[in-house]
Amino acid sequence: MEVVVLAAGQGRRMRSALPKVLQPLAGRALLAHVLDTARALEPGRICVVYGHGGEAVRARFANETLDWALQAEQLGTGHAVCQALPVLTDGEQALVLYGDVPLIGAATLRRLAEAAGRERLALLTVELDDPTGYGRILRNAEGQVTRIVEEKDANAAERSMREVNTGILVAPVARLRDWLARVGNQNAQGEYYLTDIIGLAVADGVPVVTEQPAAEWETLGVNSKPQLAELERLHQRNIAQRLMEDGVTLIDPARIDVRGQLICGRDVEIDVNCVFEGRVELADGVRVGANSVIRDALIGAGTRIAPFSHVESTRMGEHCVIGPYARTRPGTELGADVHLGNFVEVKNSRIADHSKANHLAYVGDADVGSRVNIGAGTITCNYDGANKHRTIIEDDVFIGSDTQLVAPVRVGRGATLGAGTTLTKDAPAEQLTVSRARQISLPGWQRPVKNKQGA
Amino acid sequence: MEVVVLAAGQGRRMRSALPKVLQPLAGRALLAHVLDTARALEPGRICVVYGHGGEAVRARFANETLDWALQAEQLGTGHAVCQALPVLTDGEQALVLYGDVPLIGAATLRRLAEAAGRERLALLTVELDDPTGYGRILRNAEGQVTRIVEEKDANAAERSMREVNTGILVAPVARLRDWLARVGNQNAQGEYYLTDIIGLAVADGVPVVTEQPAAEWETLGVNSKPQLAELERLHQRNIAQRLMEDGVTLIDPARIDVRGQLICGRDVEIDVNCVFEGRVELADGVRVGANSVIRDALIGAGTRIAPFSHVESTRMGEHCVIGPYARTRPGTELGADVHLGNFVEVKNSRIADHSKANHLAYVGDADVGSRVNIGAGTITCNYDGANKHRTIIEDDVFIGSDTQLVAPVRVGRGATLGAGTTLTKDAPAEQLTVSRARQISLPGWQRPVKNKQGA
Amino acid sequence: MEVVVLAAGQGRRMRSALPKVLQPLAGRALLAHVLDTARALEPGRICVVYGHGGEAVRARFANETLDWALQAEQLGTGHAVCQALPVLTDGEQALVLYGDVPLIGAATLRRLAEAAGRERLALLTVELDDPTGYGRILRNAEGQVTRIVEEKDANAAERSMREVNTGILVAPVARLRDWLARVGNQNAQGEYYLTDIIGLAVADGVPVVTEQPAAEWETLGVNSKPQLAELERLHQRNIAQRLMEDGVTLIDPARIDVRGQLICGRDVEIDVNCVFEGRVELADGVRVGANSVIRDALIGAGTRIAPFSHVESTRMGEHCVIGPYARTRPGTELGADVHLGNFVEVKNSRIADHSKANHLAYVGDADVGSRVNIGAGTITCNYDGANKHRTIIEDDVFIGSDTQLVAPVRVGRGATLGAGTTLTKDAPAEQLTVSRARQISLPGWQRPVKNKQGA
Repeated sequence: MEVVVLAAGQGRRMRSALPKVLQPLAGRALLAHVLDTARALEPGRICVVYGHGGEAVRARFANETLDWALQAEQLGTGHAVCQALPVLTDGEQALVLYGDVPLIGAATLRRLAEAAGRERLALLTVELDDPTGYGRILRNAEGQVTRIVEEKDANAAERSMREVNTGILVAPVARLRDWLARVGNQNAQGEYYLTDIIGLAVADGVPVVTEQPAAEWETLGVNSKPQLAELERLHQRNIAQRLMEDGVTLIDPARIDVRGQLICGRDVEIDVNCVFEGRVELADGVRVGANSVIRDALIGAGTRIAPFSHVESTRMGEHCVIGPYARTRPGTELGADVHLGNFVEVKNSRIADHSKANHLAYVGDADVGSRVNIGAGTITCNYDGANKHRTIIEDDVFIGSDTQLVAPVRVGRGATLGAGTTLTKDAPAEQLTVSRARQISLPGWQRPVKNKQGA
Repeated sequence: MEVVVLAAGQGRRMRSALPKVLQPLAGRALLAHVLDTARALEPGRICVVYGHGGEAVRARFANETLDWALQAEQLGTGHAVCQALPVLTDGEQALVLYGDVPLIGAATLRRLAEAAGRERLALLTVELDDPTGYGRILRNAEGQVTRIVEEKDANAAERSMREVNTGILVAPVARLRDWLARVGNQNAQGEYYLTDIIGLAVADGVPVVTEQPAAEWETLGVNSKPQLAELERLHQRNIAQRLMEDGVTLIDPARIDVRGQLICGRDVEIDVNCVFEGRVELADGVRVGANSVIRDALIGAGTRIAPFSHVESTRMGEHCVIGPYARTRPGTELGADVHLGNFVEVKNSRIADHSKANHLAYVGDADVGSRVNIGAGTITCNYDGANKHRTIIEDDVFIGSDTQLVAPVRVGRGATLGAGTTLTKDAPAEQLTVSRARQISLPGWQRPVKNKQGA
Repeated sequence: MEVVVLAAGQGRRMRSALPKVLQPLAGRALLAHVLDTARALEPGRICVVYGHGGEAVRARFANETLDWALQAEQLGTGHAVCQALPVLTDGEQALVLYGDVPLIGAATLRRLAEAAGRERLALLTVELDDPTGYGRILRNAEGQVTRIVEEKDANAAERSMREVNTGILVAPVARLRDWLARVGNQNAQGEYYLTDIIGLAVADGVPVVTEQPAAEWETLGVNSKPQLAELERLHQRNIAQRLMEDGVTLIDPARIDVRGQLICGRDVEIDVNCVFEGRVELADGVRVGANSVIRDALIGAGTRIAPFSHVESTRMGEHCVIGPYARTRPGTELGADVHLGNFVEVKNSRIADHSKANHLAYVGDADVGSRVNIGAGTITCNYDGANKHRTIIEDDVFIGSDTQLVAPVRVGRGATLGAGTTLTKDAPAEQLTVSRARQISLPGWQRPVKNKQGA
């Protein structure tokens, strides 16, 4: 099979500078979802028909193996498929998909392809409670499809039909060439409709078979931001349902957003209003607190992430205790039983087992050993205005509060840094290191008084 | 036209010390919404009939041009309108609105006023699937309104009518005077019902015409906190729908709250669970991360606000990078390409282009130049216990981590402050300034040991 | 009355290592909800029939007065009740409940018990729009229950019945003994069904009466994570409705989670997306900002909690101003008019009236007097690596920014600490205390230059 994806539409109703098929659904372009589904069918080729905003569309998928066919003018779906014909192979079946129908399911398409076999035209249709606006499927007494009639051309009896055309179809490439050459544009829009090949197929005696999608929402298209939001919610609802069926406890399935891949072990619990982006793996027993944002992360078994945490490009070991209000940035690697508390930021650092930074700290470009206690207000001064330098903190170090570690610097095993130290040279192992001025009190001191003019 | 707004009700079911019409919808009093809509009609006058909690109601709208009529006792809607008669003008039409029906639309009211013309009585009615509890509109064979029958007085046939009275009407002032003088209180409640004027109008041969609202929810009233919440959600859903139709990408239209005016440029994206208050303007391409709270702000094009940000009374330039967990307070003005990172607070300060405060800092009452780097843990000591003082940081300054700037103080152009500096005097331009004790290590030092008794 | 709670099921579809009846609903085990409701009926005894994961179940309720009956093999509901018979008392009525039907209401059960009287069998039934899958209640011409027919054994007429069995029933203990001894397992599952006692009761001439629950959702059971989430939402919706009826303003009733007991005074307002856990009491006029998490707290009248606050095991006085991004941890006691601002953590500390810590601070194990100003970046160094020590800050103290208080230490009444002080000894009252190195500037200093290799 070969796949043609129509992706040339402008989507004026989106009111956006971004081409419609690049609008995001679950954080990825609509077209990316369609291409993923197409690839799952293992087709011989995928040809994307592009047009509006075309270079942006091509650029976004530049690293993927795709054929591209330019539809310079938008003259209808039949015209769009025509642009792909040069790269399609006679003898193959062609599946026509739409870059703005992102939730179509691979299982549905497999059934459609099977129904098509090698010779038939297979059309995906759907029964709608309210078919208004869609092309109706007309059938003869034997139930065979005879043609599709558009809303505006339909009589009352035809309009009462609830089975409608989704536009998704499979047809033999050679036939498609022939039929599309014969499709005209004598209609109100002056466009070449792909739909018209159904009548030609019937006239040619080519069997037209139909399949219906597993769910109606698979065939929904996106033409406006409200529709985009509707599909986003449908998609998220489906993801939530799947997670729960796999045993994940979601406190509110209507308040989780997964934009990418969320892989969960046994007995994972996710509280309300969390967002997952990229590839996130939560091992057995992980609990994620309310309002957390997690992107591209591996979280070890039993780790507990408290509310308001923001985790990005991070690996965490088992039984860590993170947050609330902890932030880990790219390059963070935590061992087991690491504790990061409130208002703590870690970036591009390794922190080994049983170490803790529980309050108000910045750990950047650091290698931290095991059983290290990083006091409140500790800051690694990793940037000198020109270059970044690393801080090395060996095992069993105790760093007093409000200490600055001016990198590059090393704190030896078992060392203690006194509160308020500015560490500019290495601290020897096992010793107490401080930089501290003498504490003095001024007996006669008068406090400032409030200005008359106010402040 | 002149408008009468009935706002005297107590709203006992609200179970609140606040008068019902001051209960907040989208952050503003119910009555404020009605007055806004009334003003959109450009009436000759607006008369608010107040009663329960009256002084609080008057005080809230003290700066607005309104007539006030006291309804000392609550003796029914007819009685309420009577209180307004002294200020109304014969020859004008009077529109009667309700302070607890906040979502009524100006377009609906314009149609109603047009239907009323100069002589007719125009009644806003609505067809309900379940009309139980409402007064039904009775019509004769020609379809003309004959009277309104209350639920409890209605026979079975009358109860089956689905068209009900909303209470909103337009009537000629002179007629209103006459009719209201004739309305009695011989009913179960012993109240004077405004509704009774319909029968009098019909008897007097005054044409009674009806209009229906654009949406049923326009006529919903608030009598309890559950109803208040229901209207809040309806209102927010409508706002979200309008934003999306204008091209804004909302990741979840059910999870955005707009309490005031949100003005968006092209290709704005708003992630889940954001709250906007006051007047907020987001220029082209602004992206607002999940869980952000933004109040009274101008955000420049291309600026990205990461999750958990709290922005208040702030102007930001283009292409800023804000958050996560950044907080800007009133008087914050950021240039272009300013970066504020996690756990950073800015108050009453100007920060010019390309400057950064990426971690754990407090910048208050400061003027910060361009290309300044404010290190982690930097604090402007703007308050001496009595007065606030300003900190001046000129262009190209590098402030080392954990520095305190004891205001008033100035850091000259291109200066560098070493980590941990307590800056009490101005720092000269281009030089390195530090205040630092010598780092010493104590070889024989013994760490504290854990008390037997525990801690 | 005596209560039997069936709690032996594995709940394989939950896909969890946790026994089904320990799965959390609103933060507590499903079984805990059922036991609470059972206790509200003041029964003579409660016998829990346990099986799968039994020791974990018993351990969780080890402190409660319960009888436990082991069902070693799961041979059906009739078999389960049999295990409880040894502890039940002839002459009493037995109420059978289910550990996985958590929302059953006490009022419903009281009506059921009254209907049962001392001699009858009372069955809780419910009419469903779609009864598919449930046992239908069959009645004779007089409307008396004759038997229950399971879905798979029902003919078309029987399947059309919409009244179904909930499994919840009250029966005389002595009769129950007799009937259960006669129930067989000749069915497709080879199980002993409790339901079969209905037919035996009818045969024995024991009157079978029915009651229906106040709401259909009371009888919903939990067999999968999607069902668990569905019940969580139902439960939260009910809690929200009750709060609003009591006068609480909820900005979005679909976005509040209450896991425990939330007690609210008059005119409390709760913004979107808040979570309450344990026992939380909000006095009159408290306002809770969006995205806050509050657990086990007493919040005084008029206190305002700004967004993103995290409050745990805390008492706050009146008119405090908390957050945004404030965190209070166990043992926090705040007086009246205390202000805690952004990125401030308080733990196991008392802070008296009118004191403020508005920015970036850690106050742990401290006693803070009245009218104290704790500057930005202040840290109590309460932990020396082995023991925790207390910091005492007396009334009217002003603590300069970025100060470390190395505990144990005392700051005398009216003292001032200069910015950047490391306080290792007590600070005398009324004096200014500092530890500060001299500020020096280095004229010839060259800034680092960016490495060629980059960083």
